[in-house]
Amino acid sequence: MEPQIIQWLKDRYPLSDVVRVGIGDDATLLDLSASPGTVVTTDMLMDGVDFIVDQCGPSRVGRKALAVNLSDIAAMAAHPVAALVSLALPRTADLQFVRAIYEAMEALAREFDVTIAGGDTNCWDQPLVVSVTVIGQATAQGPLLRSGAVPGDEILVTGAFGGSILGHHFDFQPRVVEALQLHNDFELHAGMDVSDGLSLDLARMAEASGCGAEVDLDVVPIAAAANELAARDGVPALQHALSDGEDFELILAVPSETARRLLDEQPLGVPLTRIGKFVKAAGLWQRQASGDRIPLAVHGYLHGAGP
Amino acid sequence: MEPQIIQWLKDRYPLSDVVRVGIGDDATLLDLSASPGTVVTTDMLMDGVDFIVDQCGPSRVGRKALAVNLSDIAAMAAHPVAALVSLALPRTADLQFVRAIYEAMEALAREFDVTIAGGDTNCWDQPLVVSVTVIGQATAQGPLLRSGAVPGDEILVTGAFGGSILGHHFDFQPRVVEALQLHNDFELHAGMDVSDGLSLDLARMAEASGCGAEVDLDVVPIAAAANELAARDGVPALQHALSDGEDFELILAVPSETARRLLDEQPLGVPLTRIGKFVKAAGLWQRQASGDRIPLAVHGYLHGAGP
Repeated sequence: MEPQIIQWLKDRYPLSDVVRVGIGDDATLLDLSASPGTVVTTDMLMDGVDFIVDQCGPSRVGRKALAVNLSDIAAMAAHPVAALVSLALPRTADLQFVRAIYEAMEALAREFDVTIAGGDTNCWDQPLVVSVTVIGQATAQGPLLRSGAVPGDEILVTGAFGGSILGHHFDFQPRVVEALQLHNDFELHAGMDVSDGLSLDLARMAEASGCGAEVDLDVVPIAAAANELAARDGVPALQHALSDGEDFELILAVPSETARRLLDEQPLGVPLTRIGKFVKAAGLWQRQASGDRIPLAVHGYLHGAGP
Repeated sequence: MEPQIIQWLKDRYPLSDVVRVGIGDDATLLDLSASPGTVVTTDMLMDGVDFIVDQCGPSRVGRKALAVNLSDIAAMAAHPVAALVSLALPRTADLQFVRAIYEAMEALAREFDVTIAGGDTNCWDQPLVVSVTVIGQATAQGPLLRSGAVPGDEILVTGAFGGSILGHHFDFQPRVVEALQLHNDFELHAGMDVSDGLSLDLARMAEASGCGAEVDLDVVPIAAAANELAARDGVPALQHALSDGEDFELILAVPSETARRLLDEQPLGVPLTRIGKFVKAAGLWQRQASGDRIPLAVHGYLHGAGP
């Protein structure tokens, strides 16, 4: 790694002592003692898989690597607090490249009052890898889980779906503020963020809750980008909306009375739309005009596997 | 990624739902509310840099990836609680390979009562990357910092140094238990773990504490492996001990009265040795037989840069 890069990191994070981990020490100390629960989330993004850095540039990589984690914190309606950033830099990376990653990440971190609190910067002869861990605090209401939906709950979503590959997968706004506001002001039963596709993630949410989900396809909000992509590739825009993934919008399970209020009041800067309801019958269903339901195929993009 | 691998992860971590993050949800919930402080640490290890997986096998990679983080938690004399594991797997990785990584990691995690609480498993056409984050809890004494040494403190170290490349850098025991015991039972002013070389890390500890360190080279404990390596490469064993790195032993700053007791009682399963003292004069010094000091060159292996 260029000595310039090491010096820049030292200057920018003055408490850091250029060891593998932590600002100020081997590990980073966080005061989460007042928290009703600590949430942690991690995502690893790789050049050629999650982005092509020669095409998108390092800034968008840095922003996305933090943003996907913030979206996971939003899914639990928690406050993001601190991020740890680990990089495997290609040998060709110069200071400008590293700065671009960090500065884009810092800009997003500032928006959400998140501290970049540590990390591990390395260098090798292979493509860029960025691994970010975000630590957050649950609110007094506790974390919003994906497993709390009950049959009869309405399925509400923020924003619109599909075509994220055209740019949204870099530029999306993690729904942190929206999730906190809704969790604080309204009764929500469950929530998650859509990373792998609306149909796949909704099916997971239903499964985690021990129920099924019935979708009214006519009202699924379709992003302009999904229409644009449909015009190019001939795949219906609705199909893009259901399966493209990386929308990073929220799916919420809301009791019907609360759902009516939410749809009426529209308290967020982004539209809330009802796309169906959770039902007793396991699986994913498509509601027909007749009122009957038929199975809805689950498609999505599998980004990675747990734990 | 082989469907077998995804299925295995699902079975092994039954609450996981094969999304990018978290067991049971988008993020992982930890109860750290009773903790006087949360510590977090992260390390990224890459094939060809920190290990050569074709030579060492996946088990040793898995163990090391967790162990280096546990050593960072030990350096703060904190209790490790949970680990998040992110992998970029080469396309050739089969289930056996992934199992070997996790099983070695789990075995070490069990020793320290650590839960593997989440992660992100990915696949690409490039070499293996393993990124682990460990969350820990400081004790009632608060975290041990590297910045607390004062002139006059004795420099104590655990174990012996040098030649770790011959195997110790995989097989070392993170000094978690030892650090907790000493921090609980004795007055320690500062501590850190040696990852980049005894001389380099001691110099960092002195710098962080705003003082210097004087080493008595005659008493630096030299590992058998350092002698073995010296016999092969002609570099003095002491030089290996001072600069090889990846010893993952502790350096402690201890008031002299306490140091005498510790050296006398030897309360740990591993030897404690006095190698010098912290002094007012900034920098790293070598104590001569005459009692005078001369500058000691700092050598080490720079693994990576912070934050």
